[in-house]
Amino acid sequence: MTDLKTAALDYHSQPRPGKLSVELTKPTSTARDLSLAYSPGVAEPVREIARDPELAYRYTGKGNLVAVISDGTAILGLGNLGPLASKPVMEGKGVLFKRFAGVDVFDIEVDAESPQAFIDTVKRISITFGGINLEDIKAPECFEIERTLIEQCDIPVFHDDQHGTAIVTAAGMLNALEIAGKSLEQAKIVCLGAGAAATSCMKLLISMGAKIENIFMIDRKGVIHAGRDDLNQYKAVFAHETDKRTLDDALDGADVFVGLSGANLLSAEGLKRMAANPVVFACSNPDPEISPELAHATRSDVIMATGRSDYPNQVNNVLGFPFIFRGALDVRAKRINEEMKIAAALALRDLAKLPVPAEVAAAYGVDSLEFGREYIIPKPMDRRLITLVSDAVAKAAIESGVATLPYPSNYPLKSVDDVFGG
Amino acid sequence: MTDLKTAALDYHSQPRPGKLSVELTKPTSTARDLSLAYSPGVAEPVREIARDPELAYRYTGKGNLVAVISDGTAILGLGNLGPLASKPVMEGKGVLFKRFAGVDVFDIEVDAESPQAFIDTVKRISITFGGINLEDIKAPECFEIERTLIEQCDIPVFHDDQHGTAIVTAAGMLNALEIAGKSLEQAKIVCLGAGAAATSCMKLLISMGAKIENIFMIDRKGVIHAGRDDLNQYKAVFAHETDKRTLDDALDGADVFVGLSGANLLSAEGLKRMAANPVVFACSNPDPEISPELAHATRSDVIMATGRSDYPNQVNNVLGFPFIFRGALDVRAKRINEEMKIAAALALRDLAKLPVPAEVAAAYGVDSLEFGREYIIPKPMDRRLITLVSDAVAKAAIESGVATLPYPSNYPLKSVDDVFGG
Repeated sequence: MTDLKTAALDYHSQPRPGKLSVELTKPTSTARDLSLAYSPGVAEPVREIARDPELAYRYTGKGNLVAVISDGTAILGLGNLGPLASKPVMEGKGVLFKRFAGVDVFDIEVDAESPQAFIDTVKRISITFGGINLEDIKAPECFEIERTLIEQCDIPVFHDDQHGTAIVTAAGMLNALEIAGKSLEQAKIVCLGAGAAATSCMKLLISMGAKIENIFMIDRKGVIHAGRDDLNQYKAVFAHETDKRTLDDALDGADVFVGLSGANLLSAEGLKRMAANPVVFACSNPDPEISPELAHATRSDVIMATGRSDYPNQVNNVLGFPFIFRGALDVRAKRINEEMKIAAALALRDLAKLPVPAEVAAAYGVDSLEFGREYIIPKPMDRRLITLVSDAVAKAAIESGVATLPYPSNYPLKSVDDVFGG
Repeated sequence: MTDLKTAALDYHSQPRPGKLSVELTKPTSTARDLSLAYSPGVAEPVREIARDPELAYRYTGKGNLVAVISDGTAILGLGNLGPLASKPVMEGKGVLFKRFAGVDVFDIEVDAESPQAFIDTVKRISITFGGINLEDIKAPECFEIERTLIEQCDIPVFHDDQHGTAIVTAAGMLNALEIAGKSLEQAKIVCLGAGAAATSCMKLLISMGAKIENIFMIDRKGVIHAGRDDLNQYKAVFAHETDKRTLDDALDGADVFVGLSGANLLSAEGLKRMAANPVVFACSNPDPEISPELAHATRSDVIMATGRSDYPNQVNNVLGFPFIFRGALDVRAKRINEEMKIAAALALRDLAKLPVPAEVAAAYGVDSLEFGREYIIPKPMDRRLITLVSDAVAKAAIESGVATLPYPSNYPLKSVDDVFGG
């Protein structure tokens, strides 16, 4: 761990601070070049945009520019450390957006005295961008913040901690259930945790076929059920009539366990209560709800995913957000709707079933990767992600009526090279 | 003009929209690289910054990052076209910051319902940046906006339309007066225009020795004098007892004319009223207060500067802001104070007196440039600007007590290559 610490701090500070720079994309060597880039030439695109605001997409970087915005109230699993401390994470998100999908990112850290102040601030600067990725904002404030900004901005606004996790979880879940010989429609699902990621995850699974009466969400006080009077509106959605009160009650005969609790809370005893071929997504970092070692030692039929890169089947948001925004930006979608999220999840599900190129396996230090219990979720280094996921998202945007441009002529993208033009 | 229009629109749209991109500065090819750039490694700089906020300068791009921010209320000379239409200009400013001083820029366009909303917004996002360049904000709102933000932010906040113009004008003015055999202390100065640039310009000249009783500022109603009761607080500063009422009155025997009026308002007749060796800075764009052709045809002893690149002696803000911020960022100045502005002006004045390298003259299509009536202001392509101006600003910041770092070990910078490490 000390090695990681030293390496991470060196990475961020050497040979110069940070991970991103802003670079020129047009010639600037002559006085003539500069007269086009700035005064007097720049007056021409100004006049054009004043005449037709849509032309901002033709003459400025807006159409490929996403703001990654945080108030620092829920940084990674570290809690509320304030906006400035969130900057390395937001810049890191910018790195991933660029690296995987060629999207330019400005990270913006907001020191807001209230959720309303945060909303006002983001809304006022939103015209700068083609999309907004909200990040590391604590629940329940994040729900209202996202809802209001989606309503008030005419560009996609997406809280990745909610939906990114949900999309990747859903993709892996469908594959895990297929291997277990079960269906989402019939699966009994225990969700430990009731925060932003957990509620978004269960909502997406319901959109995709899971039944609310088969979902048992558990917060600090136990199972969320219709008899409780202490539920906020976001949890109340998941309340239904049931006799189950504890985690153990819920685990009895359950097909699926999703852990988004932030703690190591699934015991071997609990795992034994689950049905045959139990699907366990223990997503908390750095400590999963149950370690893969213990899970496999307890039951040989478990199908397991975690949030960690050092085990198989990592639920990693980077499989989603770069490609979701790529697809949304390319058809100039006005929002990222449920259809687009489902399309992304299904594309990820399908990609895991395709034969994996040897170089992708090699990037993860193995000879091969093949669809099965140890490989139900694609790997970030798989360059087909941008083809399949962005393409699926763009198509879903068009079909659901939120796109304002036709299917791009350069689609389907063949790889990240298509995006960079490399 | 049609050629410029076509060329400018092509420049902004081909082969892709805009002029800037965000690029990666650290390796991202392996899974290990990504584990440092993002989770889990990124948690380390987060913890460090939470412990000591100053470490944001070590682990993030903050220290080399300037926000160029506008509300679009006074775009170039085009007026209030709204924030979106200002985006090409703000991105253009980013081009110049990077090209001339290696400074990374995020352009931020703010759709604010009031000056207070603009202030609140900028203040809340200010921790993202190492400095803030305000741009194209109309007077008189710009004064209060800048004053409040300087007071409330602990990073440099600089409204370039005010101070950038003032600094470059002051530099050229000192050289023009020297050639005319006059002093700033004794010069009678007519300032046509009383907006942001004009008031800032006169204030800086006063800081550098000009006498307020020798300055005649003229707004739409004539000379600003002590008997007027229609002056806002920003103009009232320049009111003094005088019998002069009209532009012609003021021009009688004047040594200096500074035009920042936005219109062609100085006639041959007016110019004839001025004293010997009249200094005429006709800075309005695209039409100067008097054309250089008419001025020279009227009087052979005129020493003239304009805001245009196609005449000698261009008052061009790019001679100032990149190097002023470079110097301020390098010593982590908490603000850009009067001492730093004066230091920048004096450095520019001095640079114009040094022998000019042949390649600088060649960049402007002439065989040579030599200090004199046709060359009183340095040229933007002169790579010594970053050495001399940034160095002078950094030293002034240290001497005036607003720097928080010592004189940088890599100073004096030899050229823009030093900044880019090229």
